[in-house]
Amino acid sequence: MSNGDTADDIMGATYRALCAHGYADLTMQDIADESDKSKAALHYHYDSKHELLCAFLEYLYDGFAERTGAPDDGTPRERLLDLIDDVLDKPDGDDQEFGTAILEIRAQAPYEPGFRERLTRFDDYLVDELTDIIEAGIEDGSFDPELEPDDTAQFIVTVLTGAATERVTTGRPVACTKQMLTEYVETHLLADPQEVEA
Amino acid sequence: MSNGDTADDIMGATYRALCAHGYADLTMQDIADESDKSKAALHYHYDSKHELLCAFLEYLYDGFAERTGAPDDGTPRERLLDLIDDVLDKPDGDDQEFGTAILEIRAQAPYEPGFRERLTRFDDYLVDELTDIIEAGIEDGSFDPELEPDDTAQFIVTVLTGAATERVTTGRPVACTKQMLTEYVETHLLADPQEVEA
Repeated sequence: MSNGDTADDIMGATYRALCAHGYADLTMQDIADESDKSKAALHYHYDSKHELLCAFLEYLYDGFAERTGAPDDGTPRERLLDLIDDVLDKPDGDDQEFGTAILEIRAQAPYEPGFRERLTRFDDYLVDELTDIIEAGIEDGSFDPELEPDDTAQFIVTVLTGAATERVTTGRPVACTKQMLTEYVETHLLADPQEVEA
Repeated sequence: MSNGDTADDIMGATYRALCAHGYADLTMQDIADESDKSKAALHYHYDSKHELLCAFLEYLYDGFAERTGAPDDGTPRERLLDLIDDVLDKPDGDDQEFGTAILEIRAQAPYEPGFRERLTRFDDYLVDELTDIIEAGIEDGSFDPELEPDDTAQFIVTVLTGAATERVTTGRPVACTKQMLTEYVETHLLADPQEVEA
């Protein structure tokens, strides 16, 4: 891909096509229809739908890492809650269609190693970020020193994954999970929960 | 469906066909091939693949409710951990293929109201069971009286859903989640966590 703008255009078109058609029925033509490129031009850049979607998962990953990898402002508690907000709210707010397409892609991971590898990279990044924040909190004394940072981070990622799945499956709003997860952080992770409720 | 054995046979065949083919590519012929019925006979009982799969989701629900709705032996703590085990381990142990097919079906819920309705019924049942156990634990003094039973139950269901999704998506073993969830119950739900660790 020689041109960043072209890549961005195609990624934007892929996003719109996934929202409109879902993953299972998606064709290269659907993506071309959402862009100013022909189907032949898409094939020039990406051999197959599989390859294009792998590039799309990387694009999502890069966008997420860029957004959340900003300088570490705020206390560990604030950074943790901001990161949780970021995962639950963004990149697409209440975009039910996109969440559905991503769950369809997740369900293909056992059949598509390229998907699994990129989804795992995303989860691993999130666990690492959360672990760093929890360690910082333990170090500055604001988090419970008994916590296992890595296990706790993985637990939070499992909750976030469950919330995304439930949003698609039963239509349960992520706001409910956000509230419980915030409460979990404030009640169980902080060294002195009382100070938060004051 | 006039004959319980026939229904059970077809449900067993559906289970095996889902494991072998996944949901997206599943045909009535695949299910017939796993049973001693013809495709025509399947269509006599179920108009469409959609209708058969709705019946299959009900069959799973009934089996789960029967298994977990047994007389309430044990302390609330034991009952809670047994129920968590039951969801994470059963009906299919480490059956990666079946978990994948179920996640594919979950991802179709927005397009298939019949699926959503049955998946929601399943989640609601689980929330109700967990709520009952937590309430019993608060009542007998073994659980923290500050807990919100319904919110806590929903949080546990979100974790269970996340674990099932991760197993398919990244191949993460559910055993890791089970350990964290057990720790969550013992550390955060019990009125006197110390007594558990003794």
